[in-house]
Amino acid sequence: MISREAKEQFILAVGEENYDDSAAGRLVYSYDAAPQLQAMPDAVIAPRCADDVSRILTICSRYDIPIVPRGSGTNLCGGTCPSEGGLVLLFKHMNRILEIDEENLTATVQPGVITQDMIHAVERKGLFYPPDPSSMKISTIGGNINENSGGLRGLKYGVTRDYVLGLEAVLASGDIIRTGGKLTKDVAGYDLTRLFVGSEGTLGIVTEATLKLVPKPETKKTLLALYEHIEAAAESVSAIIAEKIIPATLEFLDQPTLQVIEDYVKIGLPTDAKAVLLIEQDGDSDTVRRDMEKIEAICKNGAAASVQTAETEEEAFALTEARRSALSALARLKPTTILEDATVPRSQIASMVRAINEIAETYGLSICTFGHAGDGNLHPTCTTDIRNKEEMERVEKAFAAIFEKAIELGGTITGEHGVGIVKAPYLEMKLKTEGITAMKAIKQALDPQNLLNPGKIFANSSRKRVVVMK
Amino acid sequence: MISREAKEQFILAVGEENYDDSAAGRLVYSYDAAPQLQAMPDAVIAPRCADDVSRILTICSRYDIPIVPRGSGTNLCGGTCPSEGGLVLLFKHMNRILEIDEENLTATVQPGVITQDMIHAVERKGLFYPPDPSSMKISTIGGNINENSGGLRGLKYGVTRDYVLGLEAVLASGDIIRTGGKLTKDVAGYDLTRLFVGSEGTLGIVTEATLKLVPKPETKKTLLALYEHIEAAAESVSAIIAEKIIPATLEFLDQPTLQVIEDYVKIGLPTDAKAVLLIEQDGDSDTVRRDMEKIEAICKNGAAASVQTAETEEEAFALTEARRSALSALARLKPTTILEDATVPRSQIASMVRAINEIAETYGLSICTFGHAGDGNLHPTCTTDIRNKEEMERVEKAFAAIFEKAIELGGTITGEHGVGIVKAPYLEMKLKTEGITAMKAIKQALDPQNLLNPGKIFANSSRKRVVVMK
Repeated sequence: MISREAKEQFILAVGEENYDDSAAGRLVYSYDAAPQLQAMPDAVIAPRCADDVSRILTICSRYDIPIVPRGSGTNLCGGTCPSEGGLVLLFKHMNRILEIDEENLTATVQPGVITQDMIHAVERKGLFYPPDPSSMKISTIGGNINENSGGLRGLKYGVTRDYVLGLEAVLASGDIIRTGGKLTKDVAGYDLTRLFVGSEGTLGIVTEATLKLVPKPETKKTLLALYEHIEAAAESVSAIIAEKIIPATLEFLDQPTLQVIEDYVKIGLPTDAKAVLLIEQDGDSDTVRRDMEKIEAICKNGAAASVQTAETEEEAFALTEARRSALSALARLKPTTILEDATVPRSQIASMVRAINEIAETYGLSICTFGHAGDGNLHPTCTTDIRNKEEMERVEKAFAAIFEKAIELGGTITGEHGVGIVKAPYLEMKLKTEGITAMKAIKQALDPQNLLNPGKIFANSSRKRVVVMK
Repeated sequence: MISREAKEQFILAVGEENYDDSAAGRLVYSYDAAPQLQAMPDAVIAPRCADDVSRILTICSRYDIPIVPRGSGTNLCGGTCPSEGGLVLLFKHMNRILEIDEENLTATVQPGVITQDMIHAVERKGLFYPPDPSSMKISTIGGNINENSGGLRGLKYGVTRDYVLGLEAVLASGDIIRTGGKLTKDVAGYDLTRLFVGSEGTLGIVTEATLKLVPKPETKKTLLALYEHIEAAAESVSAIIAEKIIPATLEFLDQPTLQVIEDYVKIGLPTDAKAVLLIEQDGDSDTVRRDMEKIEAICKNGAAASVQTAETEEEAFALTEARRSALSALARLKPTTILEDATVPRSQIASMVRAINEIAETYGLSICTFGHAGDGNLHPTCTTDIRNKEEMERVEKAFAAIFEKAIELGGTITGEHGVGIVKAPYLEMKLKTEGITAMKAIKQALDPQNLLNPGKIFANSSRKRVVVMK
């Protein structure tokens, strides 16, 4: 609950038009893209600048009001679900590209910028921002930073963290800090920039970011390799890397995923293959041609049933767009779609896919698997129905088994989706008590009242993948 | 002072042969490569494993004994000078390469491994570890991690931070934690891996690291571009990047530095040029040839007096080795050499070099400037004599002015050397009070007794570049 007094101060800080505590306004921001989670915020607030955010946080501290920063809410971990009420903070007024600096190869942006808009803007200048989460058409840069989003190009180019050079952020105290800058090298104190990336809004609220850009690759080429056996596909992945080739994209899709996507996009995907690798290389034309020739040969040697190279840019684009639509395609199947991101060292891809299929069978569930094979980041996805309580219990057990297997193989419980509410109960599997204690100490140090996105990352309760909120 | 009781416990923990409190043993570790700093530790200790480190830290906590982890002591910020006494911890028993994983492109190493030994070991397998601090022949990986070392290849490849995937570290509490893994993507909680990189041993003691490797570039080519004016060289740097070419190395040397290096290595450097760019590109042979042709054309258009391409690998190696010897060469000139690393956005290189020269003139000092032009990381170096008190006062004022200028140009007080003792008084220039407060809160949370490398990063006193210790 927000008191009348606190409400008056918020309105004084940001203007009446930027504070909404209507039932309809609150309902819209009571959930995000993570299924099965919903909780009403007490109000929604839209600051116009960092100073507004500072004022808001000062009032939150004064009245002990939780605050949840939110971009487009496309995260899959419940990271922006206001599970403890309070304010949801929107960046609709802070959505400008402030500068594209062609000399220093940087973009300086506000958190509300749509990822793809920024990518297009820098590409028009011959530059390239590699992180490309599948949600990039609607996700915001601020959300990408909070979640340390990955994407299809992670293997060669890394993730959001690798492209954040500097931040402006507001701390729980209301202090505005600046980290890093237009600098490749900066060791002046602790690396708060990377500490904030992926911290899910629990340590501070990012109000501006300076991002690293790279020259746009001259060209790219795309191929599909079709396999009769999942293991053969996984072996090709290892063989490509062993040849010292790092493709820009190296995606894996199993047969059920292929079928679902084809039903959705209808572009003639080879739905009879048991597994497919979608491989893309970019760079200058000589390198791309040479690498793709080598990759084609490796896939054929590695028992690919066939290899299809995209003949035109449109065809290549259709293939990667089809892959990006996997979540939307799968979501059509059943009322509830649970898309996970257990991640393993890439040498363990085949073992992990095999384990997922065994676990699905054990628990009598339909689990499709696709994902970023090159970086070991798999997306086992269960289509189910939350109203079927008995099945949901099996789903929960199956995902616990999947996470346990990922850890056993040297992996992690989340590669790019974040912990949020959904993965919090499993965090200890990865970090042990000692690791969580260290992280909680940092959280406590920077946010002693626990107002910044409370209830995220650190679990209150026991292991449960599926939590239905108040 | 270490009590008899504490000493007995340390000896019980690591064995008598690994604990040394003799005057001679302590003297050796009373200073590092940063000039003008010396302080005696109370003892020197050499653990054999992470469990030993945990035991040592538990005893340190019990008896309130400071502890300074130390690699080869090549840092230039006084980061391993035991300024508050206590223990110096050596990694002479923890110096093995544990694994080179060719499938996952990782190396797992203990902190005491010599950087160049690891680089050679991975190169023998066709792999590449890019961070190459000039001290790499003697520096350790653990030291590189603590300082987030850079080097000549930072522009294209980044710095140590960009290659650390996971750590084992011992906290002040004695807890052993593991962060990250053989994973490109991992968002399970806060990014402790990068928080620890560059934290100068003040948050925990790194006992193992998993490093990212990349395929070894097929070939490389090296050229020298000679200039009559410093500005012309700086303009070539901007023009190369503007052409969307990112060379592996893009080094700047002014005339005085060239002269000093040539006197030292005698390989026929063009000592009559006012400035030189040393440029190296690596990759596959087509790309390297094409990039180097473009770079040569840009340098010639940009008023380079001449461009010399290294004809053989040996010649190229001699050029980069000459550059790496700059500190050794400069150190021969006068009793005291102060090598700094003010860093600016690369578009400001010309302004910064001009400012350094003006400041040197104002204070009547001899300051050579060289450094990593591609990433704006300059090394203004003053050769002086600590016994000349009057001159040292001018040196101090000159460096304060240089740091102020770097910050004014959007830069930082240290690009790759670290804060340690030497830069601590200037940290506030870059971070403001708010930034330092946030960092201190993290330090306090993880090391409440302030035992881990105390007196580093955060200053007790006012601005002073030059501090003579007890």
